[in-house]
Amino acid sequence: MKVYLSGEIHTDWRERIIDGSKDLDVTFSSPVTDHAASDDCGVAILGEEPNKFWHDHKGAKVNAIRTRHGLENADIVVVRFGEKYKQWNAAFDAGMAAALGKPLIVLSMPEHQHALKEIHGAALAAAEEPEQVVQILRYVLTGKLPT
Amino acid sequence: MKVYLSGEIHTDWRERIIDGSKDLDVTFSSPVTDHAASDDCGVAILGEEPNKFWHDHKGAKVNAIRTRHGLENADIVVVRFGEKYKQWNAAFDAGMAAALGKPLIVLSMPEHQHALKEIHGAALAAAEEPEQVVQILRYVLTGKLPT
Amino acid sequence: MKVYLSGEIHTDWRERIIDGSKDLDVTFSSPVTDHAASDDCGVAILGEEPNKFWHDHKGAKVNAIRTRHGLENADIVVVRFGEKYKQWNAAFDAGMAAALGKPLIVLSMPEHQHALKEIHGAALAAAEEPEQVVQILRYVLTGKLPT
Amino acid sequence: MKVYLSGEIHTDWRERIIDGSKDLDVTFSSPVTDHAASDDCGVAILGEEPNKFWHDHKGAKVNAIRTRHGLENADIVVVRFGEKYKQWNAAFDAGMAAALGKPLIVLSMPEHQHALKEIHGAALAAAEEPEQVVQILRYVLTGKLPT
Amino acid sequence: MKVYLSGEIHTDWRERIIDGSKDLDVTFSSPVTDHAASDDCGVAILGEEPNKFWHDHKGAKVNAIRTRHGLENADIVVVRFGEKYKQWNAAFDAGMAAALGKPLIVLSMPEHQHALKEIHGAALAAAEEPEQVVQILRYVLTGKLPT
Amino acid sequence: MKVYLSGEIHTDWRERIIDGSKDLDVTFSSPVTDHAASDDCGVAILGEEPNKFWHDHKGAKVNAIRTRHGLENADIVVVRFGEKYKQWNAAFDAGMAAALGKPLIVLSMPEHQHALKEIHGAALAAAEEPEQVVQILRYVLTGKLPT
Amino acid sequence: MKVYLSGEIHTDWRERIIDGSKDLDVTFSSPVTDHAASDDCGVAILGEEPNKFWHDHKGAKVNAIRTRHGLENADIVVVRFGEKYKQWNAAFDAGMAAALGKPLIVLSMPEHQHALKEIHGAALAAAEEPEQVVQILRYVLTGKLPT
Amino acid sequence: MKVYLSGEIHTDWRERIIDGSKDLDVTFSSPVTDHAASDDCGVAILGEEPNKFWHDHKGAKVNAIRTRHGLENADIVVVRFGEKYKQWNAAFDAGMAAALGKPLIVLSMPEHQHALKEIHGAALAAAEEPEQVVQILRYVLTGKLPT
Repeated sequence: MKVYLSGEIHTDWRERIIDGSKDLDVTFSSPVTDHAASDDCGVAILGEEPNKFWHDHKGAKVNAIRTRHGLENADIVVVRFGEKYKQWNAAFDAGMAAALGKPLIVLSMPEHQHALKEIHGAALAAAEEPEQVVQILRYVLTGKLPT
Repeated sequence: MKVYLSGEIHTDWRERIIDGSKDLDVTFSSPVTDHAASDDCGVAILGEEPNKFWHDHKGAKVNAIRTRHGLENADIVVVRFGEKYKQWNAAFDAGMAAALGKPLIVLSMPEHQHALKEIHGAALAAAEEPEQVVQILRYVLTGKLPT
Repeated sequence: MKVYLSGEIHTDWRERIIDGSKDLDVTFSSPVTDHAASDDCGVAILGEEPNKFWHDHKGAKVNAIRTRHGLENADIVVVRFGEKYKQWNAAFDAGMAAALGKPLIVLSMPEHQHALKEIHGAALAAAEEPEQVVQILRYVLTGKLPT
Repeated sequence: MKVYLSGEIHTDWRERIIDGSKDLDVTFSSPVTDHAASDDCGVAILGEEPNKFWHDHKGAKVNAIRTRHGLENADIVVVRFGEKYKQWNAAFDAGMAAALGKPLIVLSMPEHQHALKEIHGAALAAAEEPEQVVQILRYVLTGKLPT
Repeated sequence: MKVYLSGEIHTDWRERIIDGSKDLDVTFSSPVTDHAASDDCGVAILGEEPNKFWHDHKGAKVNAIRTRHGLENADIVVVRFGEKYKQWNAAFDAGMAAALGKPLIVLSMPEHQHALKEIHGAALAAAEEPEQVVQILRYVLTGKLPT
Repeated sequence: MKVYLSGEIHTDWRERIIDGSKDLDVTFSSPVTDHAASDDCGVAILGEEPNKFWHDHKGAKVNAIRTRHGLENADIVVVRFGEKYKQWNAAFDAGMAAALGKPLIVLSMPEHQHALKEIHGAALAAAEEPEQVVQILRYVLTGKLPT
Repeated sequence: MKVYLSGEIHTDWRERIIDGSKDLDVTFSSPVTDHAASDDCGVAILGEEPNKFWHDHKGAKVNAIRTRHGLENADIVVVRFGEKYKQWNAAFDAGMAAALGKPLIVLSMPEHQHALKEIHGAALAAAEEPEQVVQILRYVLTGKLPT
Repeated sequence: MKVYLSGEIHTDWRERIIDGSKDLDVTFSSPVTDHAASDDCGVAILGEEPNKFWHDHKGAKVNAIRTRHGLENADIVVVRFGEKYKQWNAAFDAGMAAALGKPLIVLSMPEHQHALKEIHGAALAAAEEPEQVVQILRYVLTGKLPT
């Protein structure tokens, strides 16, 4: 089963999910989580832009080659909303996952519950801890519940 | 041409677009913009929920009946990001529009440029004023540019 | 907006929804609700069958011409589970609606809650009374909540 | 060839099909058939719910991650209707399979023939014994008929 | 409801269906039934071809502009197999209709039953007389059976 | 590359294509070519039918489990029209292949050219000998032309 | 019937088709054919760009809102290749039309035959004069050939 | 990851991309780049044509079996526009890639910038050197930027 891990790149939630799933037949993919590389990939490869909008634009599109592939090929999409920043790209990915009919698991904090209500409404699970995502994956693959 | 106006519900941007487009053959749709009704529609119709999560969940799903219809039937989707709040539902709608192949126009503020780079990367136009959206609609429909 | 009313054909729930929606811009469609005609349409038109399986088979397929058209062209699908019978055709229609991405409203009785959990999980609203369906349609179309 | 075995979880029909197909190049998948785990998976992983509706709702959605994956990735969908219970989830799966264009085999009892006529109308085979399903799979894969 | 009438062009079956459906809300479309025009349309418009294969090829493609439009926009496809000729285009249209998920009604003669078994297997009705098609259309639209 | 070999089952054209392609990375699939098994599979597995129409109907549907899988999973569809019989199932498969956007190769006899013009119009190649099909497969896979 | 007229904007071919089709039930759409407006629409509405690449990029995307709508909503796509310029946008539109399954009519000059062979291979008609396109439309709609 | 390399066949750009990507998990496909074989494949296999249009037509369709397979199965499509010729087939492939939602990388020369603006508008990257394409592939697969 292929799982795409979208969203927040500042904490170790991906590692916790990947580590916890070591015994499961799951392949994970994710966006590039090196923030600087992700921001500069467009201009680093395709040439400098004096205007920040186009600097970002070039980078966003190069990143999209990777992220859409991950998303479109996933059997399950997990989207993590962290503590800080606008995180509109996470919500955007959730929207794409929903429109593509991908099972969506949202990993978020209780204080964001109201702001995420539309996305929770489209999700099949709303978790608060990466370990819950691991438990879902284990249950989905093996039928075993946490004891 | 059918245009869906998604996103921020606290300023008059929808009115400015609709007013400016009076002479054009466009039909607009939008989510319910009465904030209180939008928040409470689920429990008002389907019964109270003591838990805020399910209160919101019921409402988000009833609203989804309207918003997905508007989005899926639109020829163009405009998503407005305003000054305040998380606005993850706006970004979620942008993701759905992108995945559905809908032409996407983003209406946002310069200070949000970096946070919106992925969504701008998927959009066909990034405007800052509702009047620019009107000008796009006029050009798309009549070929006339602003003078 | 086109609404398909699937399921139970023994009570007046369709009439109550249609009557309550008279002021709304909604077009309703439904299966043939004349039980005898629905059971016999296949053999009445295409010839008798001594074997009940084929009698039913012919009829089910002729009915499918109507029901799939109604379902596939609907903007919203309402599925009613009544008091009696197996009602597998209602659940089948709900599955088709879900796979086609149609917004699904389930109208059912509290005692069937557990048996309907998978279908409720795929639905955008779970109502118990036809009047609630009318309220949803009114809210979706006009933004007005019941007072 | 991938075969999804949907429906009734109280008898050994899955085992009989899987055992009978040992010499065939078939991979089987199915929902979680541990009734208690299936009922409680949502709250066991994502937190208790005092209200039975939401208890079931959470579980139904976690199960849907598994069942939709199985259904959407199947080359053939077998749906078994057993002796007891409402079994609306089985009929719901049959509807999803039909809408997704999956070849559908129904495994049911003669006394349910009339109630299943719409689902039989959408199926490519209506069997009464698991061994017939095995014979169909053997024929489809090898061209050999039972002797 | 839009009905496409495909197949045999030598008898009056289309007229009998259209005449019999005068009181119904149905729009019919069909291929060009003027045999000579249908055979020569390609070369008459786009230039002569000395080779019969390309003469036919040009015509078949110009006709396809019309026939695929009719087929793809139809709610119901009726395919008539007549007494004579290979009629592979009729069977080809039936295959397209099946793959597009269109409800298919076959109108054919008893002596062709065995040769048509695959197409009957994909159809929702197998009729022998045009009047039966009218009865199906009437039932589908109004719920009325022949008396 | 997966190639589905549809149509005529009385001559050795499949063997000639498969033999000729031994050095190519191609997987072939086909309908069951044992005529008797193909005709009787429905009743042999699912029970006798006194009426020939339903005898054939049951068989056609069981065969469809195999043939649609082969067709839908193919990268290329080859349809052979032989000397005798109605062969409407071959033309039906060609129509399905066309509607599914599968590259279609027709293998037929010169005397059938006019009757096949619509199907040739939808095909990417019209061959007369199985060896030409092999040459096409070799060219498509390796870029080598016959010498 | 909706016809999209893509390609060359320097001669009167669109007028000749539209004039010739006055008696037919056809609605035409096209890109903006005012060359200057088409080139500058992006910057005129959304702000100047010092870099010609982004000047063009903004314009190309605003134009895409119109052209994709025209293309995706068309029943028939006509693509005209004229005498001069690269005309890669015309070929690009032809590729989109082909991938979307739209019937494609190419209007081009004899000297471009070899360069257009792949596009002709995907088209249903290859014409040299606008009047031939009118004749095709007339035949497709009325069955009448030129006399 | 599967990458389809479409377009110009006269320089060594494909080799430079393939060589540069040796350490990456990428599979490349491309059209037949032997110009003579590509031009003559149709008639070499399926028989001579005196008319150049049909000579080319047969070849274009045989080539389409290969190119559409490559394009439709690709995760990324790279289209190269070279110095000479009309190259409408390259632009056609870009249009197909765009309509199929494939991530598109354009490899072209600065002097073609204006002529390619519509295609650049649909692309996720516009590169001038094959090595930039390699850098994009490396970044997409490993997250590493050129140093």
